[in-house]
Amino acid sequence: MATMREVARHAGVSIATVSFVVNGTKPVSAATRARVQASMDELGFRRNVLARALASNRTRNLALVFPALEHRLGNTALGVLTSAAVAASARGFNLVLWPVSNDPAQLEEYVTGGLVDAVLLMEVTAEDARIPLLQRLDLPFALIGRTAEPSGLAYVDMDFAGAVESGLDHLTALGHEHIALLLGEIASPRLVGYGPIARTGEAFESGMLRRGLTPVVVSAPQTPAGGRAAAADLLRDHPEITATLVLNEDALPTFLAGLTAHGRSIPRDMSVLGLATSADAAAMSDPPVSTLVAPGSELGRLSVDSMVDRLDDPATPLVQALIPCELQLGDTTSPPAGATRPPRASSQSKGTVP
Amino acid sequence: MATMREVARHAGVSIATVSFVVNGTKPVSAATRARVQASMDELGFRRNVLARALASNRTRNLALVFPALEHRLGNTALGVLTSAAVAASARGFNLVLWPVSNDPAQLEEYVTGGLVDAVLLMEVTAEDARIPLLQRLDLPFALIGRTAEPSGLAYVDMDFAGAVESGLDHLTALGHEHIALLLGEIASPRLVGYGPIARTGEAFESGMLRRGLTPVVVSAPQTPAGGRAAAADLLRDHPEITATLVLNEDALPTFLAGLTAHGRSIPRDMSVLGLATSADAAAMSDPPVSTLVAPGSELGRLSVDSMVDRLDDPATPLVQALIPCELQLGDTTSPPAGATRPPRASSQSKGTVP
Repeated sequence: MATMREVARHAGVSIATVSFVVNGTKPVSAATRARVQASMDELGFRRNVLARALASNRTRNLALVFPALEHRLGNTALGVLTSAAVAASARGFNLVLWPVSNDPAQLEEYVTGGLVDAVLLMEVTAEDARIPLLQRLDLPFALIGRTAEPSGLAYVDMDFAGAVESGLDHLTALGHEHIALLLGEIASPRLVGYGPIARTGEAFESGMLRRGLTPVVVSAPQTPAGGRAAAADLLRDHPEITATLVLNEDALPTFLAGLTAHGRSIPRDMSVLGLATSADAAAMSDPPVSTLVAPGSELGRLSVDSMVDRLDDPATPLVQALIPCELQLGDTTSPPAGATRPPRASSQSKGTVP
Repeated sequence: MATMREVARHAGVSIATVSFVVNGTKPVSAATRARVQASMDELGFRRNVLARALASNRTRNLALVFPALEHRLGNTALGVLTSAAVAASARGFNLVLWPVSNDPAQLEEYVTGGLVDAVLLMEVTAEDARIPLLQRLDLPFALIGRTAEPSGLAYVDMDFAGAVESGLDHLTALGHEHIALLLGEIASPRLVGYGPIARTGEAFESGMLRRGLTPVVVSAPQTPAGGRAAAADLLRDHPEITATLVLNEDALPTFLAGLTAHGRSIPRDMSVLGLATSADAAAMSDPPVSTLVAPGSELGRLSVDSMVDRLDDPATPLVQALIPCELQLGDTTSPPAGATRPPRASSQSKGTVP
């Protein structure tokens, strides 16, 4: 492989000039830059990235820790991963995938063997045992999600409580008063205290009580069979329910199918509103489901950008961001069939309340 | 951060002994190893992986190139990605995600800026322009997929032709003679000549003709709307069809829904058999779809393992592997409703042919 010296000789410039072009450390005229580039191409020169990394004590690798084997990665996680890779690349970093569970001992093996400047943690739990490890190792990290007490920690999370509020606003504006929440059940004991489920459940209960309504919460495994069973259970145990919020993307299609199989027409007999569903999954369901769309891409992008900002300047304030879920209307929400009075004015509607 | 010297002093051993423990270069007694490990933990020592990488000219990074922005990453690609990350980790490598399209100029930027020992290419096209680039740069690479003429190249691909044959065997054994193939349409001009669609189409046409049957091929965008439109078009233009092979995972759920909406009962009026569908997507559809399951995990694992084998020993023969898709029966295939004769004996059945 060619050296900078050989490139310099070939292009008829100094080694320093080649270095300026390669490392972008000083401006170089377009003509000279083009000549250097042509010589690099002709000689097959590649930057000695390892040596540069050693000199700067920077690998320009960011690790994204995700639980490959604990449970199926959903569309939102996929959006996080894709956008994080794009954002890292835009900042001159590689995104490295660490398929490791929420087990600090396993993570430590990766950290000590790995070649990264910082770590982004997905699937954060209320008391996440990986955090003390990363603090002890003094490795910069940020959470995609957050713990029960995230003060002092960098995090980027979905605003689950805000999404529940938006969902309740939408459904009550349509006239619904009997509203259920369908949560997922995560089988893995490692994910006990997994934030989204706990936060959504709490926000739903308090939001319903604040509106003078009775909260009904059911849960089901995050599987197709789970969705079917949840539909049957809900219709049997809570026949008064006219609308359901669903934080369970994998069970959502069969929850809809299960309602239909029991003779219910959607949305006439049951409105269904997805919570933190990916836009792809929402559009792919039958009928297309109304949902508060999970901001997967924003999570990935902001977590990477804020981490690189901090690596570039350690004085950068910690990011602590909650990203809202936007309402995307499909064909699964409407006023309840038996509505005997006009729905309350929706915040989306232009009507006025008498 | 502690140095090896500090660890050695703390553990009361020589620096060489610490190095043996860290790098595994010579055997060290369990007791000494434990003492060194305890000192490393107490002092917060991490291997100087960069220096090691520089000394060995190995980064222990493998890049997986996938088109983040060209089209939605399906469940099978997700399986490849996850299993590749797990396999890389098991061999002591990091998997780096390069979200770059099938554009050699863009890939070159990654290669020259990146820190990897080898590259794995996804979404390979018939004449893939990235290959000459990687050959010119003398960077080891392997294809997940393959070109039209892959001799001399390392590749791991799904056996699409074999999957079509298995699918036709299954459907004709059930008694079907009027069989259609529903393909995806990839909008991106960069993916012209994308292998799976071309190979599947060819195998279907020759397999049908060899059986004395008339091949009917339709295609639809890889979207929910595409599936619905394909159902309507197929029923209108080819009312004789009693079974459809579908290589279009994203349109499959709404293809089923579209058939149902037109009053067809599945599988009585139309058998549907997925081709190279992920097991997850198949189980999640309604009804659960019979499918030849895409071996996403095997593709990821084998491509990484064979690449690491080659990096460890450049004399290792190139891997050129076609991985079969296994038949997973759901509820969408049966004999045709109007069958006037018993179905031919299936290769799956235990019956004997007279």
